[in-house]
Amino acid sequence: MDITNRSPNCVYNFLRVCFGGFISSGASRIPQDGENCYGASDVSLQSPTAGDCSLQQSWDITYQEAAIYLQEGENNDKFFTHPKNAKALAAYLFVHNHLFYLMELMTSLLLLLLSLCEAPAVPTLHLDIYVHATLELFALVVVVFELAMKMRWLGCHTFIRHKRTLGKTFVLLVQFIEAIVVLVRQTSHVRVTRALRPIFLVDCHYSRAVRRNLRQIFQSLPPFIDILLLLLFFMVIFAILGFYLFSPNPADPYFNTLENSLVSLFVLVTTANYPDVMMPSYSRNPWSCIFFIVYLSIELYFIMNLLLAVVFDTFNDIEKKKFKSLLLHKRTAIQHTYRLLASKQRPSGIPYRHFEGLMRFYKPRMSAKERYLTFKALNQSNTQLLRLKDFYSFYEVVGLKWKARRSREYWFDELPHTAFLIFKGINILVKSRTFQYCIYLVVSVNGIWILVDTFMLKGGSIISQNVPWSYIVFLTIYGVEVLLKITGLGPLEYFTSGWNLFDFSVTVFAFLGLMALAFNMKPFYFIVVLRPLQLLRLFKLKKRYRNVLDTMFELLPRMASLGLTLLIFYYSFSIIGMEFFSGVLFPNCCNTSTVAESYRWRNVTIGNTTIVEEGYYYLNNFDNIFNSFVTLFELTVVNNWYIIMEGVTSQTSHWARLYFMIFYIVTMVVLTIIVAFILDAFVFHMNYSRKNQDAEDEKGITLEKEILKEELLMILELCRRDCNTFEIAELRKMISHLDSNGQTSVHLVGRRSRTKSDLSMKMYQEEIQEWYEEHSQKQAEQHMEELLPSRKLCQRLGLRPRSQTIN
Amino acid sequence: MDITNRSPNCVYNFLRVCFGGFISSGASRIPQDGENCYGASDVSLQSPTAGDCSLQQSWDITYQEAAIYLQEGENNDKFFTHPKNAKALAAYLFVHNHLFYLMELMTSLLLLLLSLCEAPAVPTLHLDIYVHATLELFALVVVVFELAMKMRWLGCHTFIRHKRTLGKTFVLLVQFIEAIVVLVRQTSHVRVTRALRPIFLVDCHYSRAVRRNLRQIFQSLPPFIDILLLLLFFMVIFAILGFYLFSPNPADPYFNTLENSLVSLFVLVTTANYPDVMMPSYSRNPWSCIFFIVYLSIELYFIMNLLLAVVFDTFNDIEKKKFKSLLLHKRTAIQHTYRLLASKQRPSGIPYRHFEGLMRFYKPRMSAKERYLTFKALNQSNTQLLRLKDFYSFYEVVGLKWKARRSREYWFDELPHTAFLIFKGINILVKSRTFQYCIYLVVSVNGIWILVDTFMLKGGSIISQNVPWSYIVFLTIYGVEVLLKITGLGPLEYFTSGWNLFDFSVTVFAFLGLMALAFNMKPFYFIVVLRPLQLLRLFKLKKRYRNVLDTMFELLPRMASLGLTLLIFYYSFSIIGMEFFSGVLFPNCCNTSTVAESYRWRNVTIGNTTIVEEGYYYLNNFDNIFNSFVTLFELTVVNNWYIIMEGVTSQTSHWARLYFMIFYIVTMVVLTIIVAFILDAFVFHMNYSRKNQDAEDEKGITLEKEILKEELLMILELCRRDCNTFEIAELRKMISHLDSNGQTSVHLVGRRSRTKSDLSMKMYQEEIQEWYEEHSQKQAEQHMEELLPSRKLCQRLGLRPRSQTIN
Repeated sequence: MDITNRSPNCVYNFLRVCFGGFISSGASRIPQDGENCYGASDVSLQSPTAGDCSLQQSWDITYQEAAIYLQEGENNDKFFTHPKNAKALAAYLFVHNHLFYLMELMTSLLLLLLSLCEAPAVPTLHLDIYVHATLELFALVVVVFELAMKMRWLGCHTFIRHKRTLGKTFVLLVQFIEAIVVLVRQTSHVRVTRALRPIFLVDCHYSRAVRRNLRQIFQSLPPFIDILLLLLFFMVIFAILGFYLFSPNPADPYFNTLENSLVSLFVLVTTANYPDVMMPSYSRNPWSCIFFIVYLSIELYFIMNLLLAVVFDTFNDIEKKKFKSLLLHKRTAIQHTYRLLASKQRPSGIPYRHFEGLMRFYKPRMSAKERYLTFKALNQSNTQLLRLKDFYSFYEVVGLKWKARRSREYWFDELPHTAFLIFKGINILVKSRTFQYCIYLVVSVNGIWILVDTFMLKGGSIISQNVPWSYIVFLTIYGVEVLLKITGLGPLEYFTSGWNLFDFSVTVFAFLGLMALAFNMKPFYFIVVLRPLQLLRLFKLKKRYRNVLDTMFELLPRMASLGLTLLIFYYSFSIIGMEFFSGVLFPNCCNTSTVAESYRWRNVTIGNTTIVEEGYYYLNNFDNIFNSFVTLFELTVVNNWYIIMEGVTSQTSHWARLYFMIFYIVTMVVLTIIVAFILDAFVFHMNYSRKNQDAEDEKGITLEKEILKEELLMILELCRRDCNTFEIAELRKMISHLDSNGQTSVHLVGRRSRTKSDLSMKMYQEEIQEWYEEHSQKQAEQHMEELLPSRKLCQRLGLRPRSQTIN
Repeated sequence: MDITNRSPNCVYNFLRVCFGGFISSGASRIPQDGENCYGASDVSLQSPTAGDCSLQQSWDITYQEAAIYLQEGENNDKFFTHPKNAKALAAYLFVHNHLFYLMELMTSLLLLLLSLCEAPAVPTLHLDIYVHATLELFALVVVVFELAMKMRWLGCHTFIRHKRTLGKTFVLLVQFIEAIVVLVRQTSHVRVTRALRPIFLVDCHYSRAVRRNLRQIFQSLPPFIDILLLLLFFMVIFAILGFYLFSPNPADPYFNTLENSLVSLFVLVTTANYPDVMMPSYSRNPWSCIFFIVYLSIELYFIMNLLLAVVFDTFNDIEKKKFKSLLLHKRTAIQHTYRLLASKQRPSGIPYRHFEGLMRFYKPRMSAKERYLTFKALNQSNTQLLRLKDFYSFYEVVGLKWKARRSREYWFDELPHTAFLIFKGINILVKSRTFQYCIYLVVSVNGIWILVDTFMLKGGSIISQNVPWSYIVFLTIYGVEVLLKITGLGPLEYFTSGWNLFDFSVTVFAFLGLMALAFNMKPFYFIVVLRPLQLLRLFKLKKRYRNVLDTMFELLPRMASLGLTLLIFYYSFSIIGMEFFSGVLFPNCCNTSTVAESYRWRNVTIGNTTIVEEGYYYLNNFDNIFNSFVTLFELTVVNNWYIIMEGVTSQTSHWARLYFMIFYIVTMVVLTIIVAFILDAFVFHMNYSRKNQDAEDEKGITLEKEILKEELLMILELCRRDCNTFEIAELRKMISHLDSNGQTSVHLVGRRSRTKSDLSMKMYQEEIQEWYEEHSQKQAEQHMEELLPSRKLCQRLGLRPRSQTIN
């Protein structure tokens, strides 16, 4: 991903790509002559223009192409979108750029946020129609520009084949027309199509996780729908049955027509109306409860769980297939790269020179030392050449962060003896179990204190004006603990542990709360309220909690992306809800419905007393996007959702129920996926840790390599050509450090955090081997066709065709 | 299991066991002298009394013991409860007997059903105190008798070590004392201990599945409780937070004290009070919704799912471990049996003579032919002797039902030509796709017809007095279809398919409904209402539904046992509920509580109109065991459960909430286990069918064996000694049939349905091998000790020690 970020010439690229060939190529990394080489003559395959290219420049292009292959492997971009000529290459580099990505993100966010200001707007954010319509037009123009850029890279043919982009184009067109219409008429019509706006966000580079979730949701849909049909089918059967059984009872409003019967049973699946729906018939005949018990047992306890099971199973299967295809895609990318770089003279591998060239394009921010270390880490056979077999582990090794192995045990090793002894004592103290358990004890006492304190409060002034002494005592203990730990372990070690970071921040917060109390700063009182969070520290105590919390943190990114996916659905439903239902709910609005009670605001007289009865449900409306989101969250939680549904239905039409039912089903899908995901991730982690009980503590992937002084000198030599001065200075410092200590080599440790992919690699170890064999068999069949593009390129470039051996 | 059922002397055994040695031993299967052999001299190891035993009798004892080993292997009884002397053996045979099992079941059911009649009784079933107390005492005496019998078998030492039996004894004692107290005082005190009665049911032989579920629930508890603590912990933190944030709002009844805050948040985890609990604060400050959204996201959407994940993971693990231990237990049982039967002269295997003797005791109902076939099926090496390696698959083979292979293709093969052609035509017709789809079409039309018909009804008289013609038309079509299928496929083939059975019964029901309509029999009108069930036939159409329904049917027994387990919990909670809360709920009972509305039955005046407002919740009470069960089901469904809780709390004390909260947690555990079970079973099945895509259609385990005429003659020869005349006649018929057809052999097919164990065997194929190796290593260490008991026995019996070789 970093490939495109390196060059200072992205602005140049921008201009060049935008304005075609009008600017003459300056001193850009993509060599000015190289540009001609890459594909100026992409029509005339028979007339290579290679005569113009110097060798180094042609190699640079090869590195560039190889780096693009690696990037495609990483991003799971299909190889048929591989840029095939200079124009496409320039567009590719322009589009794959953090600036461009950010622009994409900003435009889509702007488009989404517009609904805050469009009528029905959030009161404080209301904008005039011509302002927000102009903003929208501007954003849409930017999107058009982005699309045009992508088309330049992909070419028309691929562009049309790509469904998502095609959909985006269509939505763009509709939005454009509508925005203009709004601007012309100076009034907003029913713009339900705004519900499609999230497609721009989904299409962003950064929304990869959301796209993946959506894909997974869509792939889980077919089995889901099958079981849903089963569910609906039983619902219909029971609705007919219920209608026959209960409609003779005039006191039963739930089954008096077939439609009501169906709606009641739909709501019953969500349990939202449970005992109530049964009560009229139950009070008439106790045996009628059997109908409801059987219905709930079948629908809620069996079919709903089956739904989860089916989705979970599909999810599992998809995850594995996805992992497999990603793995094989990366492998193919590595093969493509290898084929480009392994030279004819040395067909058995890639020499360091080429590897270094590749890395300069693939990861421009990487230092020369790290490049060499990566090469060395890959090169298991310790020969001059990197073989394909070793090169396959490229993606695992390239992410490592290299650091010199720490020779010191403690941070205070080099202090004078007395200080050393003191710090050593503190170190032993803070690492001792007694110390830890003392702290746990203090936290527990603190927790009980807070609980009792709060319990004694019973209303009255909640936060007293003077600072309670217990607060100061406990805070002092925590402060001392933090100080001791920092001095004992050294700041570096202290802050690398997530738990310590948590302790630290909680203590700092508590301190800020104390300040707020002491100086009577009302707006910061909420910090005082966070005191109970201290108690979370107790969860370090038990291993299972540590496991669970670790898993939780590993799940967080994915959870966040799932939450975002849910929000996207919320957004679409909010827009639709606002267009149709905004303003329909208000106090005493729904007097004709069965749920009138919940919307009532009235004075009731019972005997002689008058009571104000406030049904708050009119607050759950679609009057602006914030309210809609809260309402939709309430619908997601499902409880009492039918009150909102019936309220809206009584104010609009029967068809409004469809909106709510469809929303229920959609959130059910997403939530089921979330459950399946948590289940899958957790079970996977547990299985993994059961399989690898020895290596349990290992938190990340580490690799140790030794570099000899001679190798450092060689790197320095190579580096002189194109490294910056800082890097050279660092290398020199390292060599002189070696000299002064009389050592001949330096040990470096590469470290990175463990990803799901690493875990999967270990879990499916045996199967992976099978996949590889299967894959290479398939490739052997396609071999000739696959080789063609790079051969064509070579022919075009007039370069010697490089080796295509694969071992 | 059948071993004990065979002998007509179980009554004799009963008397003999009950009255010790008072009756002189008659002509029982356990030979009168053999009884002495088995262990009369169990003290005097040095003085064998074998001189008294004839060889055949001593072998019979060996067969008996071997059969008991096999039975223990099957029932997962531990080997240390293996009967060690004649008294224990007699008690063992007495206790392992379907009559005894039934007695156990009946007593425990009687005890459970007593609560229908004890105050507070179901109105129509009320019994006087001395009647039900006497019944209870009677049942308890029977239980004492059963326990005494078990003690005779197990011996005092083992008896005390067995926790469940010990618990049962304790409960028995308490119940006894209480029943006597009730009888003496002639009034019932607060008998909460009745909640322990289900232990008698759980201890029944037939409740094995329930015991297994309970064990699984208890094993899943530790991780469950850990996560539950996490949940409660966050609840406490948020309760304190909520109290600080919302208690200044006087309109907010949910957070005005810390206790209310805690209860509100507990109920919120179940979502039962969701939008309501938020509304007062939300109407004051819209941002307060964040508190609730964060709380629900953490508790409901994360931790609750984590709970499921942890239970699912534990469940998975336990299932596998259970399967492993059962498998190894069976293997050990087979080894024990083999050791007893492999003779010294022929240490390499069991001759048929001994195998036959064993089977006579293990499965007395098995015919001589089946015994021989089982031997032949086991004997892979086709030698005279059955080797241990082959003997290991004993349990898989012994369940097969053997039938002569059908030589006929159709049932009408032997009819005259014309008839054959007609039936053949029908056969082809009913098997054709066109026919099937026509039927599906008819069913769909019927479904739409019913739907439209019901929709047009709109109240009025629901079931018209005259039979609608559409009903007759569709029923005729279904009738013709059933007849065609039966004639085309033959009744035997027709009724072996579950789907056909379903079709048949639905059609018969519809016909009965028609009769009911035609002859105007009101009580049977409900059958008419079942018409929509016809639509279920449509689910044959799609493969996934067939899969799902097949899985469902395979799950049913286990689901039923899980349901029963839930009912046992219901029972205990009902008793407690009835003891404390019976009679506290009635119309207008809870006017002081926040949920008074739901219990109200009053006339309200709004302006000039008077409305009767009926809150039905007073019906959800604990006034008798039926009502309690319905109330508990409503609590299980969770929605609005807090209305019942608050109602009861307002009438009793704050501590009543504990009952409801504990019940919620218990049902949560059981329901989570149910979900985990469905998930596990379903995913297992899917994985299995994915792994074995070829053998997908195979519905059961089949095995084919050929028996030569000579072998049949040999069986007949052996049989003359102790087979009944019917069996001999059958064998003769078979031989003569062979003679008349001029065949020299007959083919027989053994068939049984596939069990979960078979699937597991296939799934864990590789691991099983590892387990076996591990197991035999462990055994090799314990070898000498394990051999001791049987050696001792031999020494006692004065018989030649039999071979102990294991290959």
